[in-house]
Amino acid sequence: MGGDYGPKVTLPAAIQALKKFKNLKIILVGQEEVLNRYLRRLKPKLGDRLIVHHASQVVEMDELPSQALRSKKDSSMRVAINLVKEGVAHACVSAGNTGALMATSRFVLKMLPGIDRPAIMSVLPNKPLGTIHMLDLGANIDCTAQHLLQFAAMGSVVTAAVTGVKQPKVALLNIGTEEIKGNEQIKEAHSLLLECKDINYVGYAEGSDICLGEFNVIVCDGFVGNIALKSMEGMAKLTAHYVKTSFTKNWLAKLCGLLAFPVLYSFKKDYNPDLYNGATLVGLNGIVVKSHGGAKQLGLFCAIHEALMEVEKDVTSQISEQLLQILEQEKEGE
Amino acid sequence: MGGDYGPKVTLPAAIQALKKFKNLKIILVGQEEVLNRYLRRLKPKLGDRLIVHHASQVVEMDELPSQALRSKKDSSMRVAINLVKEGVAHACVSAGNTGALMATSRFVLKMLPGIDRPAIMSVLPNKPLGTIHMLDLGANIDCTAQHLLQFAAMGSVVTAAVTGVKQPKVALLNIGTEEIKGNEQIKEAHSLLLECKDINYVGYAEGSDICLGEFNVIVCDGFVGNIALKSMEGMAKLTAHYVKTSFTKNWLAKLCGLLAFPVLYSFKKDYNPDLYNGATLVGLNGIVVKSHGGAKQLGLFCAIHEALMEVEKDVTSQISEQLLQILEQEKEGE
Repeated sequence: MGGDYGPKVTLPAAIQALKKFKNLKIILVGQEEVLNRYLRRLKPKLGDRLIVHHASQVVEMDELPSQALRSKKDSSMRVAINLVKEGVAHACVSAGNTGALMATSRFVLKMLPGIDRPAIMSVLPNKPLGTIHMLDLGANIDCTAQHLLQFAAMGSVVTAAVTGVKQPKVALLNIGTEEIKGNEQIKEAHSLLLECKDINYVGYAEGSDICLGEFNVIVCDGFVGNIALKSMEGMAKLTAHYVKTSFTKNWLAKLCGLLAFPVLYSFKKDYNPDLYNGATLVGLNGIVVKSHGGAKQLGLFCAIHEALMEVEKDVTSQISEQLLQILEQEKEGE
Repeated sequence: MGGDYGPKVTLPAAIQALKKFKNLKIILVGQEEVLNRYLRRLKPKLGDRLIVHHASQVVEMDELPSQALRSKKDSSMRVAINLVKEGVAHACVSAGNTGALMATSRFVLKMLPGIDRPAIMSVLPNKPLGTIHMLDLGANIDCTAQHLLQFAAMGSVVTAAVTGVKQPKVALLNIGTEEIKGNEQIKEAHSLLLECKDINYVGYAEGSDICLGEFNVIVCDGFVGNIALKSMEGMAKLTAHYVKTSFTKNWLAKLCGLLAFPVLYSFKKDYNPDLYNGATLVGLNGIVVKSHGGAKQLGLFCAIHEALMEVEKDVTSQISEQLLQILEQEKEGE
């Protein structure tokens, strides 16, 4: 029910995913009447691979997390997460209110042992390696060095599980790569990470390294991560606007645009930001994937795919085991 | 002498600026022998509009600011700033070590009354308004709400002076635009700014608003600002790489690229990041402009142009007067 477009986008995306991934089943959680109305129109013919599960309430996009948690016990979000808790579903995908999704997931599913807070992790485009994982992207505004260490451990384990890279290169986001750079929290996290043998920590990364550096995982607090992510989104949109402006500013440019159409079209298709939609709430005892609220069908399809991959790779158990190892060794080292 | 390329870039840029701006004079500060060797080769014929002023030392790009300040009293950087202090020059432009430039400028020129710390401010591209001013971009890692208020005041005054916009719209960078978002420092700065009648404060901005929001000035601490700026630079480079890849991936794409050459060429020229080179060290009792270390001729030319504009608009006096007003009213309000 969530996101800027609700079932108008979530349903076609679910059907697209079911057609593509034959081992997938989807439970649509939300207001039965609304969902069935859409389904009657779309006529997907997917048998029991697409089920509707009724939930009477909806968490609004601007609702306070605490309020959603207290008064929306039959919301689509809460019921979907309950289904994961009960083992009926393997993962939950939502385009709804991020704060409410975090709070509800944490309350219902609980944290993995050794982890204080969940973090939002996402895949982003990266020039040398194709993709990079980055966390936290906005769940935790104030973080201690210890939290950053936990994010690094989670990022490393999930990235290894999802991408197959054996010892992911983990870096800490800072304003320079020299030892003297950064605030106290960053310097302390840097020391903790240097001591931690189970994480392949390679040192500081700068903002430009998110897109250009040869790293697999970039770790930062949620305030900085959210601002870096959104700044990059803004720049990507501005550049796309510039390209469009260049190809439409006069008749000659328009003609060039027509001639270059196949390339411009493939550029738009290959580098569609929707392909990176689907952020994982790591650190929870269960898989919850958050789609961008403004995502359209392709974006939501990618978020469902992300959840499916994490289920197939059994990411939660892998994190759980390896995290305990890392965090216990780190404690012994103290 | 500074930057990644030294006189090889600074000299041609200086000559280009002198040819373009007839009211400009430039004093090249650095090792006489080196500079004269370049000048003999370039033969600029600019008479007394281009003078060499000898300075025996050079601050290295990785030198500690404190060390540069203590042991490099005859460095090109120090001597150039001294010339501003003595009134021989109206402004100093440097592509050298940022930390050393900040520390030396602060030591020699001193701060304007009411300002605790200088901030790095730069012009960035913005979709609705063409350009936006942002500060601090890396001078101050840990900032109080009071510092952010000072940055807002400086940003507002300089932007008004340079762009001619009467009441620049000032926003505070945060992870969301709702009142509940952000850390304590941001919330406190938000309250201070809401009370300040002399700044046209319009509330929070998100990362994407740097490129896409309708604001004239965006204020943040130096840690977040530096990471946002570099993240955007990385994304811009990655997108340029994607465009290039799209137009070279096969013979058909290459043909399209040839046909679209005039547009691709004008795109590259119109949206060259060098056009935004030249960050101002605001809050000092004098004009100091910092060029990106990696800037080439066009970038350095733009930094010189920025300095010239600030001198012509008499930015320092304007800041000085208006800042005192703003900060005094703010004190009365306490």
